[in-house]
Amino acid sequence: MEKQRNEALVRVACVQMEPVIGEKARNIRRSVERIETAADNGAHLVVLPELANSGYVFETREEAFSLAETVPDGPTCDAWAEVAVRRGIWLVAGLSEREGDALYNAAVLIGPHGHIGTFRKNHLWNEENLFFEPGNLGFPVFHTPIGRIGMMICYDAWFPESFRLCALQGADIVCIPTNWVPMPEQDLERDAMANILVMGASHANSVFVAAADRVGTERGQPFIGQSLITNHAGWPVAGPASATEEEILYADLNVADARRERNWNDFNQVLRDRRTDVYGEMLGSGAKRGWF
Amino acid sequence: MEKQRNEALVRVACVQMEPVIGEKARNIRRSVERIETAADNGAHLVVLPELANSGYVFETREEAFSLAETVPDGPTCDAWAEVAVRRGIWLVAGLSEREGDALYNAAVLIGPHGHIGTFRKNHLWNEENLFFEPGNLGFPVFHTPIGRIGMMICYDAWFPESFRLCALQGADIVCIPTNWVPMPEQDLERDAMANILVMGASHANSVFVAAADRVGTERGQPFIGQSLITNHAGWPVAGPASATEEEILYADLNVADARRERNWNDFNQVLRDRRTDVYGEMLGSGAKRGWF
Repeated sequence: MEKQRNEALVRVACVQMEPVIGEKARNIRRSVERIETAADNGAHLVVLPELANSGYVFETREEAFSLAETVPDGPTCDAWAEVAVRRGIWLVAGLSEREGDALYNAAVLIGPHGHIGTFRKNHLWNEENLFFEPGNLGFPVFHTPIGRIGMMICYDAWFPESFRLCALQGADIVCIPTNWVPMPEQDLERDAMANILVMGASHANSVFVAAADRVGTERGQPFIGQSLITNHAGWPVAGPASATEEEILYADLNVADARRERNWNDFNQVLRDRRTDVYGEMLGSGAKRGWF
Repeated sequence: MEKQRNEALVRVACVQMEPVIGEKARNIRRSVERIETAADNGAHLVVLPELANSGYVFETREEAFSLAETVPDGPTCDAWAEVAVRRGIWLVAGLSEREGDALYNAAVLIGPHGHIGTFRKNHLWNEENLFFEPGNLGFPVFHTPIGRIGMMICYDAWFPESFRLCALQGADIVCIPTNWVPMPEQDLERDAMANILVMGASHANSVFVAAADRVGTERGQPFIGQSLITNHAGWPVAGPASATEEEILYADLNVADARRERNWNDFNQVLRDRRTDVYGEMLGSGAKRGWF
């Protein structure tokens, strides 16, 4: 049964956790525990990290294939769909997807009636190129009763085109399952560059962003936590979370007000102000206009 | 005569100043004084704010026209070219340009041999729409002995497409004459959103950015200062400057190293990693490939 909710407010939870490489059953169990906690706390939409079920640092293709599964009819999606349906919530979570002999670094959107859609990471980072194929589903935006939901994964957020394509298709909330790693030359007196990219893109596209990162060090690779949720002006309304500890961020997002408040003055609405005559439509993903 | 310089280092100066609306002769004189100071301090490239000669808040079209001039053969460009040629430096500065009966919020690039090129602000902010025409010159990138130089003005930087077009045409340094105003919901515990947008875009495009803002309040409109210069990793190497005081920022940029260091690992170079099959080339400005 679907949860009662205030039509205007969507409570989003970002689960910052530490998956353990290879321990899929354990990772699924712990992710479901956290989803239950978030639902207990009134979350309508729960975001989990990238590759939340498998861990990130694969040593061999054999290992990568052994941890991947078909979507949506694999054991991880089954477990996530069970809790989403039972609790009447929406869920965006990262996992390793196998389709034939190809692997994708994927995220699924699951709702109160089960699997809604899948995203495949378009921009592969570093040795992901040894295991995964580049995403081939564009940046789909899904209509749900709580708003239009777009997805991207980690390095996709380094490309402003990713956010633009979501926003131009009307996305209200962009969900980012991520496994952020330290960036070269990080200025330790400032926000993490990953957070700066999220805040800037959220502001420049008037979209909420919910980024759920992992923590911990896996086979020598550290991850930086600092999950965050921004409002449509780009500012954190929850987080940045700890750099090292597991936690759950919560924020209540007013999707209706965000759509209303995109006009910054008598002349400017940032998504309408684009000079497509100068730089083209950038609608390669089949996006339509007229949402904003 | 052109200044001697280390081939690898370009000293950039951002002049944060307070033009006074309508007092063009005074604004020109004071801008030239600051250019001289920057040249005395070894600057090869000096960036001035948006509308540095005229001030920003026009009350009538008559006033706006009275302060505009043709480019490059008007008194402001003459004065700036005189100092640039005499000191052997490059200069990017904002002014109000008149072409026939159209006004543009423009920036000029001037070098040791005089006027090199002009940029016209593509994205007009608020009541600029009452006075200026939208820019019609794209985002040109000019080749100079100190590197490839792109320009944008203020609100252009809210559009990641602006930076992408500069970077895709090989820009080493993006110069931003600006008149930043307070943004709604600015988080006072964090960097100004304008600075966040600059840092993120600088990082995501591997370009240096030199943004010269104004300070002061003009006819009730406050400006926020906080000029800054970022390295190609996106981090401030000078500034953010004061929010209220005039000052000059200096940074030595190693353009050669920046071109070398765009490979972040064995697989990733952010400008090459774009998925143009997903979102198109975004080369509407006539940009070519192969620079990076």
